[in-house]
Amino acid sequence: MNHHRLFPSEIPVSVRWSSDGRAVEILDQTLLPSEELFLRLEDVEAVAEAISVLRVRGAPAIGIAAAMGLALGTLNRIEAQSDPPSVSRLKKGFLEDAELLRCTRPTAVNLSWALDRQRRVVEAHAARGSSGGLKDALISEADRIAAEDREMCRRIGEAGVELIPEVGAGILTHCNAGALATGGIGTALAPVYIAHTRGVPLRLYAGETRPLLQGARLTAWEASRAGVDVTIITDSMAGALMKQGSINLVIVGADRVAANGDVANKIGTYPLAVLANHHAIPFFVALPRSTFDLHTPDGGSIPIEVRGPTEVEGTDRGRRVPDGVEVWNPAFDVTPASLVTAFVTDGGILRPPYEPAVANLLKHRSGDAR
Amino acid sequence: MNHHRLFPSEIPVSVRWSSDGRAVEILDQTLLPSEELFLRLEDVEAVAEAISVLRVRGAPAIGIAAAMGLALGTLNRIEAQSDPPSVSRLKKGFLEDAELLRCTRPTAVNLSWALDRQRRVVEAHAARGSSGGLKDALISEADRIAAEDREMCRRIGEAGVELIPEVGAGILTHCNAGALATGGIGTALAPVYIAHTRGVPLRLYAGETRPLLQGARLTAWEASRAGVDVTIITDSMAGALMKQGSINLVIVGADRVAANGDVANKIGTYPLAVLANHHAIPFFVALPRSTFDLHTPDGGSIPIEVRGPTEVEGTDRGRRVPDGVEVWNPAFDVTPASLVTAFVTDGGILRPPYEPAVANLLKHRSGDAR
Repeated sequence: MNHHRLFPSEIPVSVRWSSDGRAVEILDQTLLPSEELFLRLEDVEAVAEAISVLRVRGAPAIGIAAAMGLALGTLNRIEAQSDPPSVSRLKKGFLEDAELLRCTRPTAVNLSWALDRQRRVVEAHAARGSSGGLKDALISEADRIAAEDREMCRRIGEAGVELIPEVGAGILTHCNAGALATGGIGTALAPVYIAHTRGVPLRLYAGETRPLLQGARLTAWEASRAGVDVTIITDSMAGALMKQGSINLVIVGADRVAANGDVANKIGTYPLAVLANHHAIPFFVALPRSTFDLHTPDGGSIPIEVRGPTEVEGTDRGRRVPDGVEVWNPAFDVTPASLVTAFVTDGGILRPPYEPAVANLLKHRSGDAR
Repeated sequence: MNHHRLFPSEIPVSVRWSSDGRAVEILDQTLLPSEELFLRLEDVEAVAEAISVLRVRGAPAIGIAAAMGLALGTLNRIEAQSDPPSVSRLKKGFLEDAELLRCTRPTAVNLSWALDRQRRVVEAHAARGSSGGLKDALISEADRIAAEDREMCRRIGEAGVELIPEVGAGILTHCNAGALATGGIGTALAPVYIAHTRGVPLRLYAGETRPLLQGARLTAWEASRAGVDVTIITDSMAGALMKQGSINLVIVGADRVAANGDVANKIGTYPLAVLANHHAIPFFVALPRSTFDLHTPDGGSIPIEVRGPTEVEGTDRGRRVPDGVEVWNPAFDVTPASLVTAFVTDGGILRPPYEPAVANLLKHRSGDAR
């Protein structure tokens, strides 16, 4: 159950079972990079708190933590009593746990999806009228979700590594689409890690990603831990870096991709795509097939979430903005498909025209793990 | 001697004489926006300290502060004695003061230029062998430098205001090229202030300008004080803002412009020019004629100053970057002339081709104040 055995040794694990198997452990991402602390979460409430305050973040990592949290809840309920409870009592408790977890991040797709997978495990046992083996089945399903995610990351990495020239490439990324956000080696960072383990020389440039600095705090941390050469820049320095010839390719993750290939991702992604286009630098988007949303025809249909001003204003004196001045803080932007050189997926590389390529890729999705 | 009488009432003054005429007062820009403190500087040493730790910044404002500091030094030297000192003793002290000030910011062009103007005043008196009127002559010359700068800002504003459509324009700027950086209403912000005082509706968008946040801390502060509607964004949000149609024009200042029109300015300017070009939004650069450097043929000849990592790393826990990770921190970038729609100068608007337009403009420079 120790996921880290399956990782290249230095790539951090975001979620794991405790060594005694009685708790979920979360690498607290709110403390990185100044503290590396695995929080021991001994009940569902603690897992819910960790998800809701972003101690664990990234849609796949959240899904895994929630699935493990549900197994933990049932385990605790069984161990709290000398006689094992009935399956109907366990199911009732499970559904309460699932509801608690669902409310932590209502918009995270992987969260509902992981909860639904565990619910089917409980319902299968309830239909048989037996609680025997339920705990182990929930633990196995959580581990399966994690293993599938790990495999998905690996496939993205294997597909994307072919795009990295073996000449000491400069690779620019944004935000964190790495190990910390997934159960594996990440999405955008997966090709970088695989190239690195194969001995391909490269340098990763991490845009700091204002306002929450996931690039500086998380991407730079995990990549440098993995032995990758990393340079942090402010988001405003990408233009100068491309102009001086330091960047051979840009690779980012995605929050949602429309049927036509328009990409919603962390704010600051779109300017990188425009700059890459201006400098004739390839711009790649790495993602699992599940991130394509055929119900969204194009980027214009993707609502832009605008968050409160506090993240930009900061809290320490030197960084505060003047009182009463408006702050605009959209959480993501939309990059038109025309600026994307290729998508790097667990089903291979997609090149334009994207509309038929995406439809064709997703036709085969049902047979796959994800 | 109170400069603020010449300003629209709410536009802040960066440097002024104290009301008793015995000290230079500096609005301490390191404390903005959380504290608005005028520091009373009673000797040359205090003025030098204020310049060197960026309490006063912006090339024109530094030049004015230095010229006033030199007048203050001579004033102090005369008042310290019952018999007025000889002109040769005053000159000796003056040259020591000038050397102290020159070393505060060795690369600031306006600083040397202001010191040289005051030195000529002293030398004229020394040639006559009389210290009579020297103090008043130095004060007058400092005031003349400030007045010329104010006039230069006004001319830039009058030229640039014609470029602002009277339809509630969205205007994006970067860093601080405003009143705080000059002795007047700024360079890039001058057209904005003049449009505002004429009742033209507009909204100013201030890019926060990482790493030192001059946009969020200084531009947003002074413009909101002047009654201009301001919205702060992180530098990474400019793309989304342009894409949604909120920006009608971009206007920035310049640190140095080459003979062919290539522009060195605060890091993050170049990506804004590329984005503006991509969205067919006009991109203007506002500057006094003295910022054109005919000895620099093009942007490739402008060295990029790379500063230490501390500015990016920050000091508080939540913003720190991981230990041992490299940071790249260039202070400015170069925008090619081809991306500049027009230059807004104290000699009028310059449109391409820039090489002959700049040469022609500078032919007439010698007859002007600057």
